[in-house]
Amino acid sequence: MSDSIFSKIIRNEIPCHRVYEDELTLAFLDINPIAPGHTLVVPKEPVATIDELSDESAAAIGRVLPRISRAVMRVSGATAINILQNNGSLAYQAVPHVHFHVIPKTDAHGLGIVWNAEALDEEAGAELGRKLARLL
Amino acid sequence: MSDSIFSKIIRNEIPCHRVYEDELTLAFLDINPIAPGHTLVVPKEPVATIDELSDESAAAIGRVLPRISRAVMRVSGATAINILQNNGSLAYQAVPHVHFHVIPKTDAHGLGIVWNAEALDEEAGAELGRKLARLL
Repeated sequence: MSDSIFSKIIRNEIPCHRVYEDELTLAFLDINPIAPGHTLVVPKEPVATIDELSDESAAAIGRVLPRISRAVMRVSGATAINILQNNGSLAYQAVPHVHFHVIPKTDAHGLGIVWNAEALDEEAGAELGRKLARLL
Repeated sequence: MSDSIFSKIIRNEIPCHRVYEDELTLAFLDINPIAPGHTLVVPKEPVATIDELSDESAAAIGRVLPRISRAVMRVSGATAINILQNNGSLAYQAVPHVHFHVIPKTDAHGLGIVWNAEALDEEAGAELGRKLARLL
């Protein structure tokens, strides 16, 4: 259980620029945006990270991502958009309540990434894939 | 409609290290990982970007993100993880079929971000919030 600033926003104890709400989810403007229109989508379920989230809340968040993305693109004028969800301080999570960033990407604003990819080793990949498949 | 390399993977025309599959979604290892265990989750619905995705497919993807994250964390040993979904080449999308990256974050591997945040102007935020809320 996590009682963070987002739980207070959900309970209306702290104001926000609310843009969407349903039984399981809430969306509001990030107060420290990296692009105009930067929106957060959160489950009402008070858990810190995605691995703790119920399937039901996770499905509810997934369901609203297309419509929120369309609205954010329309209002911001951006035709590109990033969705980012961070878990753990090492992974840049600042508030310990699951949140999906919906961030317009333009030349001037939005998410920058550092992407150091390496080709997957075939043998190591096969073993890793088998291990994951067994867990799933 | 998008007939990309991911549609070929879904149709078994191109091999992959498959880790999870259900009626609406497929998950497999990224062949150019930025961390060991870097996994992609895709809808079987062949659309390029999240704004085009059906609510049903989007909910199905959301529903499996917690369990796939748990498996990726367990196999990789990482306790932090990023989920990233890019739309449009300006937003770093390489394959024109919706995909969610599930990426372990460790000191050595994973996603780097550039995050230039500015405080939200109260008046501009209020107007933007109203516009978004009207669309949602």
